[in-house]
Amino acid sequence: MLHWRQLLLVVGALILAARGLNPAHGEPLPNPLVISEVYNRSHARVAMKYDPILRAAEEVQRSSSLMKRCDLHWRHATVDHFSWAMPPRNMTTFTQRFFVCNEHWTTYGNGERGPIFFYAGNEADVTLYLNQTGLMWENALDFGAALIFAEHRYYGESLPFGPRSKEHPQFLTAEQAMADYAELILEFKREHGCQNSSVVAFGGSYGGMLAAWMRMKYPQAVDGAIASSAPILAFDGLEPPYDAGSYAKAVTYDATSKAGAAPGCSEAVRQSWDALARQGASSKDRSRLRNELNLCPDIPFQSKEDVTALALWLQSALDYIAMGNFPYASSYITNGNGVLPPFPMRVGCELMMGSGSDDIGLIQGIVKFANIFYNSTQKATCLNFRQGVNPDTDEAASLWGYQWCTEMFMPSSRGGVTDMFWPQPWNETSAVEGCQKEWGVTPRPRWAVTEWGGRKISTATNIVFANGEYDPWSGGGVLESPNPSIVSLFIPRAAHHLDLMFSHHLDTAEVKEARAIQISHIAKWIGRRPKASEGMRLQSIARSVPQKN
Amino acid sequence: MLHWRQLLLVVGALILAARGLNPAHGEPLPNPLVISEVYNRSHARVAMKYDPILRAAEEVQRSSSLMKRCDLHWRHATVDHFSWAMPPRNMTTFTQRFFVCNEHWTTYGNGERGPIFFYAGNEADVTLYLNQTGLMWENALDFGAALIFAEHRYYGESLPFGPRSKEHPQFLTAEQAMADYAELILEFKREHGCQNSSVVAFGGSYGGMLAAWMRMKYPQAVDGAIASSAPILAFDGLEPPYDAGSYAKAVTYDATSKAGAAPGCSEAVRQSWDALARQGASSKDRSRLRNELNLCPDIPFQSKEDVTALALWLQSALDYIAMGNFPYASSYITNGNGVLPPFPMRVGCELMMGSGSDDIGLIQGIVKFANIFYNSTQKATCLNFRQGVNPDTDEAASLWGYQWCTEMFMPSSRGGVTDMFWPQPWNETSAVEGCQKEWGVTPRPRWAVTEWGGRKISTATNIVFANGEYDPWSGGGVLESPNPSIVSLFIPRAAHHLDLMFSHHLDTAEVKEARAIQISHIAKWIGRRPKASEGMRLQSIARSVPQKN
Repeated sequence: MLHWRQLLLVVGALILAARGLNPAHGEPLPNPLVISEVYNRSHARVAMKYDPILRAAEEVQRSSSLMKRCDLHWRHATVDHFSWAMPPRNMTTFTQRFFVCNEHWTTYGNGERGPIFFYAGNEADVTLYLNQTGLMWENALDFGAALIFAEHRYYGESLPFGPRSKEHPQFLTAEQAMADYAELILEFKREHGCQNSSVVAFGGSYGGMLAAWMRMKYPQAVDGAIASSAPILAFDGLEPPYDAGSYAKAVTYDATSKAGAAPGCSEAVRQSWDALARQGASSKDRSRLRNELNLCPDIPFQSKEDVTALALWLQSALDYIAMGNFPYASSYITNGNGVLPPFPMRVGCELMMGSGSDDIGLIQGIVKFANIFYNSTQKATCLNFRQGVNPDTDEAASLWGYQWCTEMFMPSSRGGVTDMFWPQPWNETSAVEGCQKEWGVTPRPRWAVTEWGGRKISTATNIVFANGEYDPWSGGGVLESPNPSIVSLFIPRAAHHLDLMFSHHLDTAEVKEARAIQISHIAKWIGRRPKASEGMRLQSIARSVPQKN
Repeated sequence: MLHWRQLLLVVGALILAARGLNPAHGEPLPNPLVISEVYNRSHARVAMKYDPILRAAEEVQRSSSLMKRCDLHWRHATVDHFSWAMPPRNMTTFTQRFFVCNEHWTTYGNGERGPIFFYAGNEADVTLYLNQTGLMWENALDFGAALIFAEHRYYGESLPFGPRSKEHPQFLTAEQAMADYAELILEFKREHGCQNSSVVAFGGSYGGMLAAWMRMKYPQAVDGAIASSAPILAFDGLEPPYDAGSYAKAVTYDATSKAGAAPGCSEAVRQSWDALARQGASSKDRSRLRNELNLCPDIPFQSKEDVTALALWLQSALDYIAMGNFPYASSYITNGNGVLPPFPMRVGCELMMGSGSDDIGLIQGIVKFANIFYNSTQKATCLNFRQGVNPDTDEAASLWGYQWCTEMFMPSSRGGVTDMFWPQPWNETSAVEGCQKEWGVTPRPRWAVTEWGGRKISTATNIVFANGEYDPWSGGGVLESPNPSIVSLFIPRAAHHLDLMFSHHLDTAEVKEARAIQISHIAKWIGRRPKASEGMRLQSIARSVPQKN
């Protein structure tokens, strides 16, 4: 049985694919499109090799180029929309950040303004989404749309209690964030006199959940939603129930030949945990293993608990790599802090299968696999399994932990049979106790289903749910369309919200088709066809002539 | 210009048609059906005459007869669903009261249970709604439905902080109450294994708003809603805007011959205010007037402000009488504390026109008119214009004032031109200041439109909105159907949610037709036709054979 704190870290980290930069830096985040162009001359099975200086230069260039197209705005948001209790320090409002990028915003012949594409920010600095959400950028011109990227309260620079926000996390809930977004949209419309402009919400991962829920709860503010990799069905209390083991099953699937990985990989991964347990059983074994694996000298590796911690750390890497199992190289999953190769699960499986099949070989294989993620910068000189890929973002990760411990209480389990891990059953009691200890809050496991409806979403309209075959979150996604106006796209060979990203010449046919379907639905919701052809659309991002007013 | 406090009292009181009994008494409320039977031998224009002892006996008999058919339940409700701040006195939950009346609850051949009729309690003790909502009772047998009457937090006996609840009103919001109801419904379904049972929400006035919003915000919990006299469009920020003067216009309409009142009545009422001002202009005049009107000796009547207070008090009576302008005698508007005659606006107008047309005659006329309401018990020996009709209920009324001062901030104005009153323009600034002074809260005038969508409700389905021609709240109701699944019934000759009440042989053809339409839509939502004919249905209330399980 896992200790609750380890469990929290693992579960809490799962969804946090996109971590925010340290807000103190305030730097825009890099865009993987540019980075991956360095890789374009290689192919899917290439190992990591790139020029860090070129990469850094291109990142800055690309990021600033997108940021320059946007205006920074701040608004007064209500800290607590649903009660009238006085918040701590009498802070009834806070300043919420959002970006408006309206160079392509059309004015129609009748004087009305074009549509609004609205990114429902999730658990990171909003500049991450601004820089990554190619689907919005690439279609702005053709639809004559203004882009709004709204930051989620408590993340990035939208801090209700400033630097002390983490001390007062009580108002960090999806309902409050969605009310911020609804107010923002209506304010924006009033200020710009564009009450008739259609609004399409976009979001990936937790942001996709918010986009879909915005359409359900605030249909007057949001006319349609592109909800990508949005696990709104990953909660307790569903009928039929959510399969808490689906995440691990999907990670396992990604390590099989069905997903293009080397045959035998998932079996080798499964064996590696036993190998690790055997080779770490005694104090003497652990001393030997420390040297074999080149563990950092200051990291304790003296108990069985340390061995378990190492295993969890390795497992977590595979969870992330599966989410980032994109067809081209990308730094999205590492938040710009290192690059994953194209189809990194396949690369990891190559490394795994290229190692020996004895205990030490298996352990070295799984460590190499995990290092695709942890040492994506190729700068680590030793293995530090007490540290994540991006230590700067601990704060953002911990805030997601708070959300998980309150209303986003998604169960997670592994069994070692249908997945390639070891038995880690879901224990609600211990998870609740962990949350009480960590945050002083008691999760309400049934709340999500009560508030968001579970599987009963058939009254909703104008939502495209997209889930990727390789994305471990797809098991919590909407995979069946309950009515013709809710579209469920299952994208073969796609990982975590690939469809939202910038177009890339290594994009699969399937993700291109998914985007075309999304665009056709957006056109239907807006009631206007996009102006230009596919070819035109992909060029639009390069145009620089402002069309304001 | 009105003083803010007067304005608050007037506006705050408007919607509070149904006041709760003093919760300390805990007595069930009388049902007007029985009371009005005493009147059946008289006709619409009869003045008040009845046997108080007979009335009281029948009330108790009828009320206990309905209450006996129900089981009292309590549940743990979450004080704050949308944030995780610690409520005062560490009270994270409270006990919410609800009644379940399931003698007619069917079990179908396939083992599934029949539908659930759910009353979304509003701003009074829930027993009031239990005893008044005939539409639910009369259709329970035919639909094989269980009835649930859920009490709104902070009213009746559902007090989050016990007797100190009024000190901590912060969690008294519609959103919190609706989350209580959603949780209650899902809990009930889990406990009874009836997940597939359809749920129809019922409500009148603010309860009708809650019923409609439940269908909009929690469509997974509520399959359809009967929203009667639900002024969900009585808020600021609508496009086109809400006519804040519509309430007064409708009260005025009820005093015209188009609404069956004596010709010239509204004009006489309009003149009475000037007459009052003239006759109360000097200290000497006021002394004379005090005697003429038989004001209670201990009530000050020395200043022009006192004269204004008297005018507001009289005006308020007309507001209530218009809401209670039912075709038969009823104590609903007085909450059981006195009976209004059939079509009391017509009776009032008779009294008005029967008085002289000079200043004193007009003033005596308007006082007699108002006394239909204030002296409905016929026990008052003098006129006390500093006291409402039902002083016991000050607490409930004041809590509605809190709701008005936070999110239910409905504007109200009078002009004296399209209505029969005097100029009382809406002054948001002064209303806000009043709320700050009274409750220490600042209303958020735009919140209602943001949260509930204003006129943009076309994505909703399965709602019947019913509004009465005589009901002053109809101006804030949904009078146009935005889609075929949202039905708007405008019921001629009906006042405030008459359609929800028990059938009565003085019911108009129009209200009978409205109920038939409501029943047909309920049948559609449930997917089952009612079992019996209209005649059967009306008898069902009298049956006493329990059909549990």
